[in-house]
Amino acid sequence: MLYLVGLGLSDETDITVKGLDIVKKASRVYLEAYTSILLVDQSTLVMRPVLTQFDESYYGRSIIVADREMVEFDSNLESESNELLRYAATEDVALLVVGDPFGATTHADLVLRARQLGIPVTTVPNASIMNGIGACGLQLYNFGQTVSMVFFTDNWRPASFYDRVRENRQIGLHTLLLLDIKVKEQTIENMMRGNKVFEPPRYMTVGQCARQMLEIEEEKAEGVYGPDSLAIGAARVGGRNEKFVAGTLKELCDADDALGPPLHSMVLLGRRAHELERDFARDFAIDKESWDSIWARDYGKQDAPAAPEA
Amino acid sequence: MLYLVGLGLSDETDITVKGLDIVKKASRVYLEAYTSILLVDQSTLVMRPVLTQFDESYYGRSIIVADREMVEFDSNLESESNELLRYAATEDVALLVVGDPFGATTHADLVLRARQLGIPVTTVPNASIMNGIGACGLQLYNFGQTVSMVFFTDNWRPASFYDRVRENRQIGLHTLLLLDIKVKEQTIENMMRGNKVFEPPRYMTVGQCARQMLEIEEEKAEGVYGPDSLAIGAARVGGRNEKFVAGTLKELCDADDALGPPLHSMVLLGRRAHELERDFARDFAIDKESWDSIWARDYGKQDAPAAPEA
Repeated sequence: MLYLVGLGLSDETDITVKGLDIVKKASRVYLEAYTSILLVDQSTLVMRPVLTQFDESYYGRSIIVADREMVEFDSNLESESNELLRYAATEDVALLVVGDPFGATTHADLVLRARQLGIPVTTVPNASIMNGIGACGLQLYNFGQTVSMVFFTDNWRPASFYDRVRENRQIGLHTLLLLDIKVKEQTIENMMRGNKVFEPPRYMTVGQCARQMLEIEEEKAEGVYGPDSLAIGAARVGGRNEKFVAGTLKELCDADDALGPPLHSMVLLGRRAHELERDFARDFAIDKESWDSIWARDYGKQDAPAAPEA
Repeated sequence: MLYLVGLGLSDETDITVKGLDIVKKASRVYLEAYTSILLVDQSTLVMRPVLTQFDESYYGRSIIVADREMVEFDSNLESESNELLRYAATEDVALLVVGDPFGATTHADLVLRARQLGIPVTTVPNASIMNGIGACGLQLYNFGQTVSMVFFTDNWRPASFYDRVRENRQIGLHTLLLLDIKVKEQTIENMMRGNKVFEPPRYMTVGQCARQMLEIEEEKAEGVYGPDSLAIGAARVGGRNEKFVAGTLKELCDADDALGPPLHSMVLLGRRAHELERDFARDFAIDKESWDSIWARDYGKQDAPAAPEA
């Protein structure tokens, strides 16, 4: 049996009682990502939060840190198995996953492979950023598709997020933006010398995200959003010290000090928002008067152009 | 301190270790909903799953079943407190909530009132149907807004869901449909006699939902979806016996026996779907050949009309 156990959003006590029971009984336990090693890779970044504190000794047993090869598959090699599935064919194997097991496409792929090999799979759900963001006060049913924002470089500034945000905003919905994480980066020098020395991880901040968004709007000038658009910056969602800051995109460019350490994420508000959402998020506002006046002008509209008869 | 503790989706072992610790230490523990009593009310139905099995004795302490008056507020009465907040002002009070604390607007309202009274609030996240539905194999970032489907009656057939579904489908996104629950209903006779006798709870099934959807499409004839549109029926999501059935809306009209007992929910697929989603859900298909051919014809399109340059 293969168990996929969600660890939740913040620390080792966010595991469920059901999940902890599996960890204690399984013959092998793999941990896919944790703070000090941060095995987050680009392909699965989109959906994966990172635990801010994590003490594996809490579970009272040895845990194998799973690297990419143990979990993922090379799509060029058909019918490939991997270490995880080889053991799971005959033993109870648990893979601990930050957030919820179905946050990353990697795990859907793993389940699919296990099925093909006739290995039973049990998943233990947990909170992920996709529902944890509800703590900012915006209602989850008012969110559209989720987008990811990557670090721009001098010659790579992918703007596909802009079209996704437009689609959401055209029908009045909020957009959750998941922010880039860079880990295991090497300097060119270390790479050339073959030194396995990695740069410190980099986490995109709400300020960086807001600036990149405004940069692309300035370039495209299609009015999908602007410096006055309301948004909520979120830090360490689901953790004991989670923090939200609400304001305009322009204000959020300078909100990183207020938000504190990673991980950050952001929500751009849709105009079909409810007054309970306004009041809840207002408490997080950098400038409450500006929040109120922009809201009154642009938000709280229950109909949207795409549904004229609604 | 007021603690809002998410219970997760299925049974009493879905609470997190952090949540259980709070339950053990709090001076008063309220439980907002559980199987045998089902305190689900219409206004908060949209976001709230219901535990399929729940044994409060598991927590090893007495738990107060919170009725509506203890948790909600009458919006006509300003600055109203309630039992929960009166105790929370001086003691550690925990309110256990099925799913995630921010699944229902009620809890956002409760947090807002607590803030106004200067009562600190801590929330403990957990899985909700909003992310648990990821177990059907559809990627959460491809979902649009969530809609609710209520039981039609002879003279009340609210069709506002139709516009929301259209908005999602126009940009190629999946739609999660949360299905109606009727509890504490009385017969007219019992109501007139003042007998506090309630009818057995009713849960909408995937079959009922699919039929209502097709009925409205037939009436409106705007082609938002049709009998051939692909969807996934879900039962007891997050539970040990969760079940998915995939097929056309027409096929799902008759899938209730295959899905089994409540709670049911449903996802209508958007055409901007990925082949991993196709392959994962195909295993749940009533008719795999029909699934494949309809998918090849209508799904897996990465661009959508609302974003021509995407």
